[in-house]
Amino acid sequence: MSALVLHPDRLFPAEPGTRVFARRLYEKVAPLPIVSPHGHTDPRWFATNASFENAAELLLRPDHYLLRMLMSQGIPLEALGVPTADGTRVEADPRAAWRLLAEHYYLFRGTPSKLWLDWVLGEVFGIGEQLDTQSADAIYDLIGQALATDAYRPRALFDRFGIEVLATTESPLDSLEHHEAIRASSWGGRIITTYRPDPVIDPDTPGFAANLSQLAELTGEDVGSFAGYLRAHRLRREFFRSHGATATDHGHPSALTADLALTDAEALYGRILRGRGEAGDAELFRGQMLTEMARMSLDDGMVMQLHAGVYRNHNPHVLARFGRDKGADIPVAGEFVRGLKPLLDAVGNEPALTLILFTLDEDVYARELAPLAGHYPALRIGPPWWFHDSPEGMRRFRERVTETAGFYNTAGFNDDTRAFLSIPARHDVARRMDCGFLARLVAEHRLDEDEAHEVAHDLTYGLAKRTYRL
Amino acid sequence: MSALVLHPDRLFPAEPGTRVFARRLYEKVAPLPIVSPHGHTDPRWFATNASFENAAELLLRPDHYLLRMLMSQGIPLEALGVPTADGTRVEADPRAAWRLLAEHYYLFRGTPSKLWLDWVLGEVFGIGEQLDTQSADAIYDLIGQALATDAYRPRALFDRFGIEVLATTESPLDSLEHHEAIRASSWGGRIITTYRPDPVIDPDTPGFAANLSQLAELTGEDVGSFAGYLRAHRLRREFFRSHGATATDHGHPSALTADLALTDAEALYGRILRGRGEAGDAELFRGQMLTEMARMSLDDGMVMQLHAGVYRNHNPHVLARFGRDKGADIPVAGEFVRGLKPLLDAVGNEPALTLILFTLDEDVYARELAPLAGHYPALRIGPPWWFHDSPEGMRRFRERVTETAGFYNTAGFNDDTRAFLSIPARHDVARRMDCGFLARLVAEHRLDEDEAHEVAHDLTYGLAKRTYRL
Amino acid sequence: MSALVLHPDRLFPAEPGTRVFARRLYEKVAPLPIVSPHGHTDPRWFATNASFENAAELLLRPDHYLLRMLMSQGIPLEALGVPTADGTRVEADPRAAWRLLAEHYYLFRGTPSKLWLDWVLGEVFGIGEQLDTQSADAIYDLIGQALATDAYRPRALFDRFGIEVLATTESPLDSLEHHEAIRASSWGGRIITTYRPDPVIDPDTPGFAANLSQLAELTGEDVGSFAGYLRAHRLRREFFRSHGATATDHGHPSALTADLALTDAEALYGRILRGRGEAGDAELFRGQMLTEMARMSLDDGMVMQLHAGVYRNHNPHVLARFGRDKGADIPVAGEFVRGLKPLLDAVGNEPALTLILFTLDEDVYARELAPLAGHYPALRIGPPWWFHDSPEGMRRFRERVTETAGFYNTAGFNDDTRAFLSIPARHDVARRMDCGFLARLVAEHRLDEDEAHEVAHDLTYGLAKRTYRL
Repeated sequence: MSALVLHPDRLFPAEPGTRVFARRLYEKVAPLPIVSPHGHTDPRWFATNASFENAAELLLRPDHYLLRMLMSQGIPLEALGVPTADGTRVEADPRAAWRLLAEHYYLFRGTPSKLWLDWVLGEVFGIGEQLDTQSADAIYDLIGQALATDAYRPRALFDRFGIEVLATTESPLDSLEHHEAIRASSWGGRIITTYRPDPVIDPDTPGFAANLSQLAELTGEDVGSFAGYLRAHRLRREFFRSHGATATDHGHPSALTADLALTDAEALYGRILRGRGEAGDAELFRGQMLTEMARMSLDDGMVMQLHAGVYRNHNPHVLARFGRDKGADIPVAGEFVRGLKPLLDAVGNEPALTLILFTLDEDVYARELAPLAGHYPALRIGPPWWFHDSPEGMRRFRERVTETAGFYNTAGFNDDTRAFLSIPARHDVARRMDCGFLARLVAEHRLDEDEAHEVAHDLTYGLAKRTYRL
Repeated sequence: MSALVLHPDRLFPAEPGTRVFARRLYEKVAPLPIVSPHGHTDPRWFATNASFENAAELLLRPDHYLLRMLMSQGIPLEALGVPTADGTRVEADPRAAWRLLAEHYYLFRGTPSKLWLDWVLGEVFGIGEQLDTQSADAIYDLIGQALATDAYRPRALFDRFGIEVLATTESPLDSLEHHEAIRASSWGGRIITTYRPDPVIDPDTPGFAANLSQLAELTGEDVGSFAGYLRAHRLRREFFRSHGATATDHGHPSALTADLALTDAEALYGRILRGRGEAGDAELFRGQMLTEMARMSLDDGMVMQLHAGVYRNHNPHVLARFGRDKGADIPVAGEFVRGLKPLLDAVGNEPALTLILFTLDEDVYARELAPLAGHYPALRIGPPWWFHDSPEGMRRFRERVTETAGFYNTAGFNDDTRAFLSIPARHDVARRMDCGFLARLVAEHRLDEDEAHEVAHDLTYGLAKRTYRL
Repeated sequence: MSALVLHPDRLFPAEPGTRVFARRLYEKVAPLPIVSPHGHTDPRWFATNASFENAAELLLRPDHYLLRMLMSQGIPLEALGVPTADGTRVEADPRAAWRLLAEHYYLFRGTPSKLWLDWVLGEVFGIGEQLDTQSADAIYDLIGQALATDAYRPRALFDRFGIEVLATTESPLDSLEHHEAIRASSWGGRIITTYRPDPVIDPDTPGFAANLSQLAELTGEDVGSFAGYLRAHRLRREFFRSHGATATDHGHPSALTADLALTDAEALYGRILRGRGEAGDAELFRGQMLTEMARMSLDDGMVMQLHAGVYRNHNPHVLARFGRDKGADIPVAGEFVRGLKPLLDAVGNEPALTLILFTLDEDVYARELAPLAGHYPALRIGPPWWFHDSPEGMRRFRERVTETAGFYNTAGFNDDTRAFLSIPARHDVARRMDCGFLARLVAEHRLDEDEAHEVAHDLTYGLAKRTYRL
C-alpha cells in the first residue's frame, strides 16, 4: 500500500535556487480566489444543491480524459458503465467501474489526470493512500460517505474552494433556469453563463433547422431573413448578459473567418436555410458569423472566445453507441494568419474588442498566435487548452508565447472542465507552473523578483478578471 | 591527443538531485537484455558468422548518418569509397576513407552519431583516445586487429551485447535463407525476420511489376486478381511467421489509408496492374493495403508498424550515382488524423490489433499521435525515429507524448539500425534519456520513485517485448 | 524607483555546475569583435556621422518590436509619433512618446526587447534605474545630453562596440553613395553592402515596372528580354561587390524555387513584363530567380541568403496610414523540402555555393532545415530570425538543429536590425545563450570542455566570418 503524498514543492523546478524563487512566488498567489471564466460545469448542481452520487458517477464517468485512456488500453466503455445511446447493457455497478479505474490507475502516471485526481482524493477527501486495486473499495466507500454529508454538496464545495466567480457555458436555446434559480436563492456564489451559439450557427450541427425554429420561437424574430436571424442573436445575447454573461464562446473546426458583402451574406444564409449549401458553405457561414459576433461584441461589450481546431467525434462507433464527449475528439493542424484576416481587417484594430484565441495546435503559439496577439489590439491568447492543459503544455505555452506577445496579451487561466471537484487542482497546477516559469526567469536574471511577483498575481488572478471583464 | 572518456553520468540531467534519481533508475535497467524488435542488420552476418572487414567498411560506409554529414561539408562520397552504380572510380583504400572521417570528426560534435561511435570505439574496442587526425591510423589498425579475432565475429558480439532478440526486415520476395541457416545452426541467438511488403505494395517501387511476378511464382497464386494478390500476401506472411516474424513494417510517404468497397479496390488494383494508374492511385493503393494488412493482422496476430513521412531520394544525383540509403532522405510534414481514419473506422477499436505509428514530424507527437493513441485501442506510438533518435529528440518525444498518451501507449525503444555495433550504444542512450526524464518527474514530485522504477523497466524492456509480442 | 542591473550571469542556466561552464565559455568569447553579416542599419549614419536626435527618435520610433507591442495593448501609433502617410496629425513631442513607452515598459517583461533596451540604457548610456513613469524624463534628458556629444556619434559608437564588419542591405537601384562616402572618408570602419534584389525580382512589389525601367537605365541593358534582365543583375551584382558586398539577400513569401527551361523562363518573364501574369506567375518567377541568383553566385562567389515565410503588411489599416515595417508582418507555415528541390537539383551539390536558409516557422528546424543542410553541400542554416531572435528561440534552435546538422552547418549569428545601438546587446544575448547551450552539453558529458571552447568561438565569431566569406 503506497502513501498518497501531495508534496508541497510538486511541479516546481528541481534546481534548488530556482525552487526557492518558485516557492516564494507561489506562496503569494496560492491563497488568491479562483476566477474561472470558462468551463462546463452544470449549473443545475448549484441550483438544486443535491448531493453527488458516488465516486464513479462523480469522478470517472463524466471525465473524458479518464475514459479515453482506459479505452485506449482495451477497457470497453461498457465496462465503465458509460450509458449507451442504443440501450446496450452496460456495467450497472458503479463500484465495479471504480475498481477498473483503480486497477489501471498506473496508466495515468505522468499525465495531468493523475495530478488532478490525486489532488481531489488527497485534498478534497483527505485520502492518504494511492488509488490501486487494494485501496479501491475503501476509497470508494470513504468518498461515498463524504458525499452524503452537507459539506460535500455543490454549494459547500464551491465556497470551500474559494471560487470568486464561475462561468458555465450554455446554448442560446437554454432557458437559463438554473442560473435563474441560483440568483433567486439566498446563496451568494457567483455563477454566470456564457453565450455559446454553435447550435444555431453551425449548419453541420445535428438538428440545426430545428434549432433555428426554436431560436425564432424564443425571440419572436423571423429567422427566415438574415437580418431577423442576427436580431435574434442580439436578443439572446442580451438575455444572457442579464444572467451575468460577459463572454461568448465559439467552438469551430477551424479559425476561418469571413466578412462578406451584405447581399452575399444574405444569399449564403438563404442557401443554408434551404438546405442547399454548397461545398464550403457551412465553413464560410461559421466564419461569417464570427465576424458578425465580433461586431455585436463591439456593441454589447461581450468578450469573444474562439476554440478552433478539433476533429470532433473521430470515432464513429463511439459516437453511435455513447454519444459526444467520450474522448474521441482529436486535434488537427491550425491556421490563424490567413483564416482570421477577414475578421481582423474588419475589427482587429478595435481596442474595445477582446477576442481570445485557443488552439490545440501548439505549433501556432510562436508562429501565429503570439505575433498576431502581439500586434492587434483586439486579440488575446487563451491559456493552453484541453490536451495541453498540463505541466509540459503550460511550460511550452509560456516559452513560446511570452517572448513575442509578452505576458499581458495572454488571458489568465481557464480550467475549462466539467469535473467540478478538479477545478482547484487545475488552477493549482497552473499557478505552480507559472510560478516555476517565472522563477526560472528570475534565476536566469531575465526578470527582477519584484516584477515576477506582479506578473504572478496577474497570470493567476488579475488577467482573467480584466480580460473577461469580471 | 585527447582522451576518450565515456563518463558514467553522461546524458543525465546536470542538476545534482535529479541526477541521483537518474543514476538509481539507470543502475537497475542498464543490465537488462536488449530487445531489438525493429532494425536493418543483415542476417547474413549471423548466418555465415564471417569476420567484419575493417573500420571503414564496418563503421563508415554503411552509416548514412556519417555519409550525409561529411557530404554536407563538401566531402564527396567518392572520397569515402562509397561504391557507385555507374562504375565511377572511387577511393579504393578504406584507410584513406577512415582518415577523412577522423579529420572531420569534429563535425559530429553534439550529434548522436558521435555518441554512438564513441561508444563503439571505447566500449567495443577499448580505445582510450578521441578519433582525430593524429589517432586515425592507430585506431584503424587496432580495430582491424580486433576484427580478425573470433571475439569480434558477429555471433560473439551478439552474445556479448546481451541481445535477447533481434528483428531484421525483409522483403516478401526474400527466401529467408539466412534466417533458415541461423536456425539450423547450433548457435542459440534469437534472430527473427519482419514482413516488409513495400516492394510488392508500392506501385512507385522500381521493378514493381517484376516483383509481383516473383510474388506469384513464390506463392503459386494468380496475382492477376486482387483476391489472388491478397492470398499471396497471406501465404508469405505465414512463411515469415514460420521464421519468427511477429510483425510487419510499412514504409510509406504518408499515413493516408483507405477502406474501399471491394469492387473499387479490385478496379484500383486492376488499373495499377495494367500500368494505367491515375493521379493518386499509387497513394490510394498503398493506403488500401494498410487496411488490408491490418485485417490480416487481426487474423494472424502480426503487429503492424507504419513508418510514414519521408521524401526518399531527394537528391537525384546521389541516387543515380550511389543508389538508395546514402543520407538523401528528407522528412516532410505529417498528417495522421484524417489519413488514418479509414483504417481506424474499420479496425481501430480492435484491442487485438496493434498498429505502431512512427513519424519524422515531431509536430504530430502532441497534436495527433498522442491524442489518437490515447483513444484507439489498436494504436501505439513508436519511439522517436531516425533523425529524432537522439537525446533531444527523445526528450521532446517524452515531453510531448506522455501527458496525453501516458507511458503505456508507447512501444519501447527501437534501434532501427544497420550499424550492428552501435545497437547497445543506441539502447544505452535511450535508457539514459528515459531515466533522466523519469528522474525529473520524480524530482518535481510528479511521480513516486517506486513508480519510476517500474516505468523505467517497462520503457527499456517490458513494453518492447509485450508490444511486439516477443 | 528600481535599480537597473545587468547581472553578469544573466541568461546562463541556473544550475550552478552548468553555470560555471557557461561562465568559462562566455569569458573567452565575450571580448571577440562583432561580425554583423546581415542587418538593416542606415549607411547614411556612418557616411554623415551626424548626431542622433533624441531617445524617442533613436530607440522607439524605428523599432517595430516596440511599436507592435504597444499597439497590441491599445496605444495608437499616432500617440507614439509615428509619421503617417496620409498626413494625419500625430504626437509631435518625442518626449511624450518616450513617456508612453516608459509607462508601458512592463509589457515587455520576458521579451528580448527589454533585454536589448535595458542593455542600451545600462551599458551605452550608463543609466542605473529601470525605465518607468518616474524615471522617464530623467532618462530622456540623460540620453539627449549624451547624444549631443561626439562620443555618441555613429562612428564613435561603431568603434566603441568593437564591430569588425557591418553589412547593410540595399536595393539594386541604390546608388551606394553612402558606402562610397564611407570608403572615401578617413574613417576605418568596415561597412559593406548586400545585394537585395527583391524590388526588381518580385512582381508583387508596388512600382515593379518603374523599378525595372530604373534598372535598365542604371545598367544600360535592355530589360525587355530575359537575357538582358539577367545581364542587368550581373552588372549590379558586380557593382555591389565593388562596394564590399559578399552576399545577396532574398525576402520571399515562400521558399518555392523553380528551374524552368529557358524558353519557359523567357515566356514567364514576358508575361510578367507585359503585366499579364497568370495566377502563380509571380511566385514562380520569384522561384525561378532564386535559381538564377544561385547560378550567378556560383560565378561571382556571392553568398545567398533566403528569408522565407512572412505575410507582410497583414494589417491594411496600418499599411495605409503608416507604411511598411511597423510591426504588422506575421509568420506563416513554411515548406522547404519540395520548395527548394528545383534549385537543389540544379546546384545543391555544389560546395562552392553557399545558400543560407532562414525561417519564421520553427517547426521546420528539425523536420526540414537540419536534414536538408545536413546533406546538401550548398546549404547552411541561418540563425533564429526575427520573432525567434530571443533566448528561448535560440535555445529551441540549437536543440532542434544540432543533432542532425551539427554546429558546422549553421552560419553564426545575425543581429538583422535597424536598431544600431542594440547590435552589441543582441550579439551578447546570442553569445550567452550559445554558451549556455554548450555548457549544458558539457555538464551532461555530451561534449568535452575543450571542444566546447572551440565551438563557442566558431558560433560567435568564426562561422559568421567563414560562411559569409568576410
